[in-house]
Amino acid sequence: MSQDHPTIAVVGAGAVGGYYGARLAQHGHDVHFLLRSDFEAVRRNGMTIESCDGDFTLPPGSVNVYDDARRMPKADLVIVALKSTANDQFERLIPPLLKEGTAILTLQNGLGNEDRLAELFGAPRVLGGMAFVCINRAGNGVIRHTDHGVIRLGDFTRPSRSPRAEAVAALFNASRIKCELLDDLRWGRWQKLTWNIPFNGLGAVFDLTTDRLIGSDEGRRMVAELIREVIAAARADGVELPESLVRQQIDNTTTMGPYRSSMQVDRQEGRPMEVEAILGEPLRRAQAGRAATPVLEALYRAALVVDAARPR
Amino acid sequence: MSQDHPTIAVVGAGAVGGYYGARLAQHGHDVHFLLRSDFEAVRRNGMTIESCDGDFTLPPGSVNVYDDARRMPKADLVIVALKSTANDQFERLIPPLLKEGTAILTLQNGLGNEDRLAELFGAPRVLGGMAFVCINRAGNGVIRHTDHGVIRLGDFTRPSRSPRAEAVAALFNASRIKCELLDDLRWGRWQKLTWNIPFNGLGAVFDLTTDRLIGSDEGRRMVAELIREVIAAARADGVELPESLVRQQIDNTTTMGPYRSSMQVDRQEGRPMEVEAILGEPLRRAQAGRAATPVLEALYRAALVVDAARPR
Repeated sequence: MSQDHPTIAVVGAGAVGGYYGARLAQHGHDVHFLLRSDFEAVRRNGMTIESCDGDFTLPPGSVNVYDDARRMPKADLVIVALKSTANDQFERLIPPLLKEGTAILTLQNGLGNEDRLAELFGAPRVLGGMAFVCINRAGNGVIRHTDHGVIRLGDFTRPSRSPRAEAVAALFNASRIKCELLDDLRWGRWQKLTWNIPFNGLGAVFDLTTDRLIGSDEGRRMVAELIREVIAAARADGVELPESLVRQQIDNTTTMGPYRSSMQVDRQEGRPMEVEAILGEPLRRAQAGRAATPVLEALYRAALVVDAARPR
Repeated sequence: MSQDHPTIAVVGAGAVGGYYGARLAQHGHDVHFLLRSDFEAVRRNGMTIESCDGDFTLPPGSVNVYDDARRMPKADLVIVALKSTANDQFERLIPPLLKEGTAILTLQNGLGNEDRLAELFGAPRVLGGMAFVCINRAGNGVIRHTDHGVIRLGDFTRPSRSPRAEAVAALFNASRIKCELLDDLRWGRWQKLTWNIPFNGLGAVFDLTTDRLIGSDEGRRMVAELIREVIAAARADGVELPESLVRQQIDNTTTMGPYRSSMQVDRQEGRPMEVEAILGEPLRRAQAGRAATPVLEALYRAALVVDAARPR
């Protein structure tokens, strides 16, 4: 990743992988997309990004697109943007892309993704990042970007603010992707979970948009209780978060209006929900650290039931 | 209620009140309906029952229909078929119908309805019954009856199998409404809750039909756990139910196919859910009797959140 002109592989180009990969390509980087469902559409029509920062297109011939990792070049940077429910594909999809010094950056949701990548490919390769962005697939090969876009990232091994993390951040920042470095990746992960656990979890299990969830005292109370439990779980995992997040996450979400979390969208569209990364793994860490998280436990169990009830 | 030709008032004629009241009227009884939303439609068009046992109509002029209890005659039997969420209307709607000896039969769901009626109007008046029937409103003044219809009832004061309960049962049985007497009304209530708590509760909170709820191991496990908790709660309330109900309720429900419980229908149609009668009151009795019911408690709290998130 010290290359001047790095080869970048994007594994799993849903909205997140597609958007960031396209931004990097737009700025002249050598980007290679590994796609599944969108492969044919992108090969034929290229990629279209409808962005609040200005639309742009990657014409068909200009996009390097693959449906088989074994046909891709070795990469300097692999960006993992699979849904965490597909993490059992790591061993099949990633090894063909690796050479000495390849960095692997996961932009996936929840906990446990870096750990799994580290286990399989060695901790020194692994970085983690969180995308704070409003994007969704508007069609095959069409991505709609409606707000924000900042990535916060850090190295999996400490310190998170490493020279390599700085190099990746510089790459993003030079491609019109605002990127900030985390002092502690784990802090960033837990901080994001104070939103994801209540709003993705309850939103999916109850099938409620954020505004309806926090539109009542009962709902706000349950969300607040969950955030407090996440803070306790983070503490048990060695990460100190401020109590003020309880109020702050609820207030910020109030300004968002009716919003369907990604897990609620997955539920409504009959896709697997990211139950383990967003709820299961945080719960297991809470339990390992003897934090009391009864609401999170009930929510995890409920999510397993709802996920298993997916129409097949 | 020892009258040969009793005056019968039906308070709240949704599907349950409408169907049973119409059956009694069809067989020549003096039935008076207190309606709210259907008042105008029934006054103009009468009532239509589309029944698996044969359709029938009560023509406009022949139905005694009211929108104000104070204009109704005193009754020998008051059948309460309000939704339990409207129990705060008892004091306004029922007193005008009472005279010495008036019996009050509630056919409402869940626990606490007889208790409230007894508190307000005296325990000796009160009977409780459960309707095992598939009916729904198919339009204003139109009720569709698709299956079953048995009522199981008993006196609120013991013994439940009283002469008065026998008289009411005889009245129903003579009007083509199969009616059975309960040895213990509380047993009947708790027995019905072994279905209502898991299937109404989880069905509404997760917005899942019965088949999807018990279509997975995770779902069946949660339903079974809840039924076991209801059995423990019943025991704490002095009612002994057989453990075999766990298996039996799940097996019976499997044969029903995709079914929306009444609470799920209420949720989907934006109406208040019967959270207190079906979940809250059973939970409070479990807690008073020191039964361990953690899943029921989580479900009750979840139902409060979902109910409060109703679009307004």
